[in-house]
Amino acid sequence: MEVKWNNLDTLENYKKLLSLKDNVKLPEVLSGVSGAERVKKYSVPMASGMKYNYAAKQVNEQILTVMQKLADEAQLTEKYDLLLKGEVINTGEKRKVLHQLTRGVTGNALEGNVKQEYELYSSQIKAMADFAEKVHSGKITSESGEKFTTVVQIGIGGSDLGPRAMYLALENWARTEGKLKMKARFISNVDPDDASFVMSEIDVAHSLFILVSKSGTTQETLANELFVKNFIKEAGCNPNKHMIAVTSQTSPLANNPDYLTSFYIDDYIGGRYSSSSAVGGAVLSLAFGGEVFALFLKGMHEADVTALEKDIFKNPSMLDALIGVYERNVQEYPSTAVLPYSQALSRFPAHLQQADMESNGKHVNRFGGKIDYVTGPVLFGEPGTNGQHSFYQLLHQGTNIVPLQFVGFKDSQCGKDIVVDGSTSQKKLCANLAAQIVAFACGKTDADPNKCFTGGRPCSVISAQKLTPETLGTLLAHFENKIMFQGFLWNVNSFDQEGVQLGKVLTKKVLSGEIDGALKEYAAMLL
Amino acid sequence: MEVKWNNLDTLENYKKLLSLKDNVKLPEVLSGVSGAERVKKYSVPMASGMKYNYAAKQVNEQILTVMQKLADEAQLTEKYDLLLKGEVINTGEKRKVLHQLTRGVTGNALEGNVKQEYELYSSQIKAMADFAEKVHSGKITSESGEKFTTVVQIGIGGSDLGPRAMYLALENWARTEGKLKMKARFISNVDPDDASFVMSEIDVAHSLFILVSKSGTTQETLANELFVKNFIKEAGCNPNKHMIAVTSQTSPLANNPDYLTSFYIDDYIGGRYSSSSAVGGAVLSLAFGGEVFALFLKGMHEADVTALEKDIFKNPSMLDALIGVYERNVQEYPSTAVLPYSQALSRFPAHLQQADMESNGKHVNRFGGKIDYVTGPVLFGEPGTNGQHSFYQLLHQGTNIVPLQFVGFKDSQCGKDIVVDGSTSQKKLCANLAAQIVAFACGKTDADPNKCFTGGRPCSVISAQKLTPETLGTLLAHFENKIMFQGFLWNVNSFDQEGVQLGKVLTKKVLSGEIDGALKEYAAMLL
Repeated sequence: MEVKWNNLDTLENYKKLLSLKDNVKLPEVLSGVSGAERVKKYSVPMASGMKYNYAAKQVNEQILTVMQKLADEAQLTEKYDLLLKGEVINTGEKRKVLHQLTRGVTGNALEGNVKQEYELYSSQIKAMADFAEKVHSGKITSESGEKFTTVVQIGIGGSDLGPRAMYLALENWARTEGKLKMKARFISNVDPDDASFVMSEIDVAHSLFILVSKSGTTQETLANELFVKNFIKEAGCNPNKHMIAVTSQTSPLANNPDYLTSFYIDDYIGGRYSSSSAVGGAVLSLAFGGEVFALFLKGMHEADVTALEKDIFKNPSMLDALIGVYERNVQEYPSTAVLPYSQALSRFPAHLQQADMESNGKHVNRFGGKIDYVTGPVLFGEPGTNGQHSFYQLLHQGTNIVPLQFVGFKDSQCGKDIVVDGSTSQKKLCANLAAQIVAFACGKTDADPNKCFTGGRPCSVISAQKLTPETLGTLLAHFENKIMFQGFLWNVNSFDQEGVQLGKVLTKKVLSGEIDGALKEYAAMLL
Repeated sequence: MEVKWNNLDTLENYKKLLSLKDNVKLPEVLSGVSGAERVKKYSVPMASGMKYNYAAKQVNEQILTVMQKLADEAQLTEKYDLLLKGEVINTGEKRKVLHQLTRGVTGNALEGNVKQEYELYSSQIKAMADFAEKVHSGKITSESGEKFTTVVQIGIGGSDLGPRAMYLALENWARTEGKLKMKARFISNVDPDDASFVMSEIDVAHSLFILVSKSGTTQETLANELFVKNFIKEAGCNPNKHMIAVTSQTSPLANNPDYLTSFYIDDYIGGRYSSSSAVGGAVLSLAFGGEVFALFLKGMHEADVTALEKDIFKNPSMLDALIGVYERNVQEYPSTAVLPYSQALSRFPAHLQQADMESNGKHVNRFGGKIDYVTGPVLFGEPGTNGQHSFYQLLHQGTNIVPLQFVGFKDSQCGKDIVVDGSTSQKKLCANLAAQIVAFACGKTDADPNKCFTGGRPCSVISAQKLTPETLGTLLAHFENKIMFQGFLWNVNSFDQEGVQLGKVLTKKVLSGEIDGALKEYAAMLL
């Protein structure tokens, strides 16, 4: 079957969906016995034993039927299949899109043109695990024979947000399981105070640095490399023996004696999708060991396989994508929040903010053509229950509706807890999560208008037993694949980022002094 | 003059403002010589030698004239004056609103009914400075005579976000200036892994804990108190000698032998405005000394005084508030981003997210009456240049316009830097900031539509020489007062948070098991 790339508003089932605006009143559909039934029914299994529940989303059987037809009409799984097989899905940059391949062969991918890349990615996973093992066992040490105890990632954007969020997500788990091999720290900002701070906090002589830049030309990262090397020299160490590189094979950082070793990615792994490549793999393998990184990849791969299902009730990332498009384009909600009830996921929303907003914050279609509908929403979030004491006021009673995506786990990672007033803290955490969904969706009437809650604020919840390498992997791949399907629906190229180029060009002009007009005045004010 | 509290849409000058939608094309007004002049002219001095520049906002002389008239018509400074004097501005909870009084007497405040509170707040600042000095000098130690080296704040929401953001903002500065007396850590989430993690990272025997809860009944904080006390006991220490409290004089935590000492606030200090009260003061005085906290209060107080000016060109927080209302209600932009070019301000946007969204995310006016316009926007942000490599793609080329508020400093805090390619990292940081403003506002045409930037994305920038206690104080008070003025304009009560109550009630039901229907199913799924 030929795959057609059409704008969303040319699709018949999108037009049908537009006619189904405001059809579901959450306080009604969630009330009484049928409401309880709905919570049980509107749930889709995810990989790694997780669940995606959408009972508090503004959908019903009719809307779901149209969504299934829209998924078919937009050929979502067919497009995913092309992507997996190495079709040039990143049209602007004329590149394949192969981040799923870093975690395994999904579907019939190897029938396509991706064998060479699969060998590269697989070989890097093994090389990183081997290298990490040697560092952990003391076979690789500093020049003076000191064992490395800390790993510091130097990178920005996709080389920072994903790996950092994943590390933080698993640090407590690893410590509890006895798998925390090395503490990790991160340097990202070109602000010199960022590196100064991290360097002041670590034991430089026992630290191994990972320089991460696919192109080998990222301004911030190269400045931080030299800055950090000065600190290493000041500590009396040889910088070349304290630093490895993650880069592409064609970059100036590749096969370079300035680094202990290098691990490789290629142009087919976008920065914001690189947590499962060497960009995330080097730091996670060093921090937790190659086996843990392999479990994380397993969780991602299982979710990637699930995403091949044509049936939206077996494909949670596709269903989530369709609901998100309904909320953005039919219900016209301009932003969305991701709210994990887990302190370990404190930076997960910041990573998704990049993954989602950089992928689908686009104003032309994948061929550079005009689009007449809105694309990616503003995405933000903080962990619960913290957010409840912060911005939830606006989410409950503000004048705009913000669709919500909750994440929750039955068990804590550390296992330590306390019973206060008859319940553990973990139970309180989960009770708050359950309560918030119902509060947002159902609301409450009150004689005092200031104490009224209109409800009707849509929520989904992803749940699992515990945040582990596998469930974390499934969670991340769920969102990556959701973003991919939404990009297919909006018919945009989710894998370029031309919007970041103009700032780079103007920054160079400011630094070279070739400026006039308003930019010259701003530079005079700010530099 | 009698002060009238009217809905925004009843004001003549608001109606005029509505007629001035889309009147300013930023790429035009910022071009050429007149564009450069505009950058110089559209700038307002702030306290502490800072500047608020709004040249890249969608205003012109006509719009600014109407804004001035709107400020007068809405009696913004008169309302602020009433607030300062102790009028019951928090109508719902029938409370005065006195956070400005924690940093000094602004205007004619003492002519009002606030003398008793002023004495309380002043006495607490002195008591905290004295206590901190005794801890630093070793006059107050643990039971076994060990000096405290770390301070750990236990609190959530306003007892966490502001103090944490302020501590992080000054940690590098203090270390560089030799004023870092104690490292601070924070425990907030009821997720037991939050406390488990912090406790595993600190030296408990040398740690002093601050329990912060105005009411003394915050679920998360009380659970964490007992949890932390178990850890203290396990470390062989006496919890009562390792913990102080910050609370109200009527709370169960007041005058309680379970704490080494207590510092006090009262009901007139809202949580999200409590950084300048004992809630922020205890931890900041212990971390940096009472003198540094006093400098922070000085910067805030000077901004509070500036906010009394009737002339919008002398009152940056009022001007900023008016521009924000124009962007929200006239231009209809649903969200806004705060983008500090300073890694030290990494959690400043998270604090503003609470301050702004909890204050003005309201659906009724201050009397519980209906309002027919939108109120507070969604607010989010991350530090630059990190954000450039994350969500800026959507900000530059997304289908919705997001107004931006930048913050920048000429000098770094640590003073350490490196020259790469002819410029320091600090210069690169500031060059990026200048470049981004022009990129957002002016855009760029290109034959390839995917490389086109429409521009017209409004930006303001707050600038200062360096992030210090004073400039940080001015920055924070600027936003607090901006939020206050916007609340006056929208005619909402910015000082209550009824929207957080329903979740609390339902959580209690879940924990007691008194549930049925959808909530019971969610509880079964998640707990």
